Amino acid sequence: MMGRKFVNGVEGGSVSVDDRGLQYGDGLFETMGATDGRVRRFQSHMARLTEGCHRLGLPTPPVDLIETDCLRAVEGFGAAVVKLTLTRGPGPRSYPPPAEPSPTRIIVSTAQQVSESEAARPLIVRVCETRLGRNPRLAGMKHLNRLEQVLAGAELREPAVDEGLMRSTDDRIVCATAANVFLVRSGELLTPQISDCGVAGVMREVVLRLAKSLGIHVEVGDYTLDDLVQADECFLTNAVRGIRPVGCILGLKDFQPGELTARLRDALETAEE
Amino acid sequence: MMGRKFVNGVEGGSVSVDDRGLQYGDGLFETMGATDGRVRRFQSHMARLTEGCHRLGLPTPPVDLIETDCLRAVEGFGAAVVKLTLTRGPGPRSYPPPAEPSPTRIIVSTAQQVSESEAARPLIVRVCETRLGRNPRLAGMKHLNRLEQVLAGAELREPAVDEGLMRSTDDRIVCATAANVFLVRSGELLTPQISDCGVAGVMREVVLRLAKSLGIHVEVGDYTLDDLVQADECFLTNAVRGIRPVGCILGLKDFQPGELTARLRDALETAEE
Repeated sequence: MMGRKFVNGVEGGSVSVDDRGLQYGDGLFETMGATDGRVRRFQSHMARLTEGCHRLGLPTPPVDLIETDCLRAVEGFGAAVVKLTLTRGPGPRSYPPPAEPSPTRIIVSTAQQVSESEAARPLIVRVCETRLGRNPRLAGMKHLNRLEQVLAGAELREPAVDEGLMRSTDDRIVCATAANVFLVRSGELLTPQISDCGVAGVMREVVLRLAKSLGIHVEVGDYTLDDLVQADECFLTNAVRGIRPVGCILGLKDFQPGELTARLRDALETAEE
Repeated sequence: MMGRKFVNGVEGGSVSVDDRGLQYGDGLFETMGATDGRVRRFQSHMARLTEGCHRLGLPTPPVDLIETDCLRAVEGFGAAVVKLTLTRGPGPRSYPPPAEPSPTRIIVSTAQQVSESEAARPLIVRVCETRLGRNPRLAGMKHLNRLEQVLAGAELREPAVDEGLMRSTDDRIVCATAANVFLVRSGELLTPQISDCGVAGVMREVVLRLAKSLGIHVEVGDYTLDDLVQADECFLTNAVRGIRPVGCILGLKDFQPGELTARLRDALETAEE
């Protein structure tokens, strides 16, 4: 796979074993889509990153340096994914963060080729057994503590499964391993609140805004698998893949192509032009 | 600070930015004490590591290679700490673990000098606001997802505070940021169960065995700050520092040197000779 790597602005692919990102998952990341050398929704990603830094007590991220790195990383690629990881940097073996950390800034880009038919194909989704623990202190952030997603991901080994739906330890639907989830019920758009677990996706925010601008009624709340079974449509969102319709929740429900999902996909495409 | 670093058996201090330990905290660690070139309780640490590997679906750890690395890392040091990190190794950006991972084995040693008076000094402990989220799927393991401990550690900035006591989101005492916790009440030894959060410490197991061999009644259960206030003695345990008496829980309780803590410290010293 074609791609480039930068660590603190220098081309290269390694970090110190003392980096707190490795020692403790002490950092954040952003996974961004890029088209023709431009990073889509860069400002929204930086806004979420900045909020995460504030919550973790990390220094304000160097947005201009990140932008420079990102543009160098995707230059010349038609479609690409660029992943930024920002850690608290190297430190001695000790949980308390250094008073004056030197954060590590990692950019990894990968050229991408996704056909249009693949991008529109309804997803096959499995309900994972691995649950998300609840802690409001960490909820919403795209931090580096992702073992729950890894263990859920291990449940998706069959090639026919595209994604895994994750529930909280108290049985609420929260998100997919790498996407947010939306339901449509009687013309209304529903999505789980991200208050005690899950990631507040950049594309989730975009979809919520688009829905409001289209006059679609939105409810952010608590939903279970029963709500999923009763839904008329279901789709997943993330920054790289946009809005992807769900065709099937294995063993639970099949979905037909839905009108509201299509409207939002069209609106997103227009908004991106 | 004097020390040595090995990555997969080779002296060196860096890992790939693609390492899943950095990307997702997808791995485990062990922090071990060493005396005169020998790692204390190496087999117990390897037993816990092996169990963690089993639970995470990591290949069985190469115990003989780890031992070789550790011995090289602490050779010539009187007292040292040796930290082993075992990750799922490099992988592309994707939560599902590779079918055939190539784990990364990191050993970092640090020479240590702790005076005997320092080792016996009662600890000053703060009750942290940062809570531990509950997920039985991850509880007990010494995995690399440690943001909760980092945030709790950030609450310990005053130099006068030695450790932080952490509670679960449902208000039970679980452990300190880097130690397990024991209470003594009416001659009975109490310690929190590690069933939905916290780390099952190697020294915790040692103390539970020692207590039984001394005929001390042990209860593993659920305890709150009220139980702490009513306790006669309190101590913390970890593999490097052994048993450390707690002198004060800030704003909550002062403890006098306790008889049962002293008995267990003596028994531990004898067991280690």
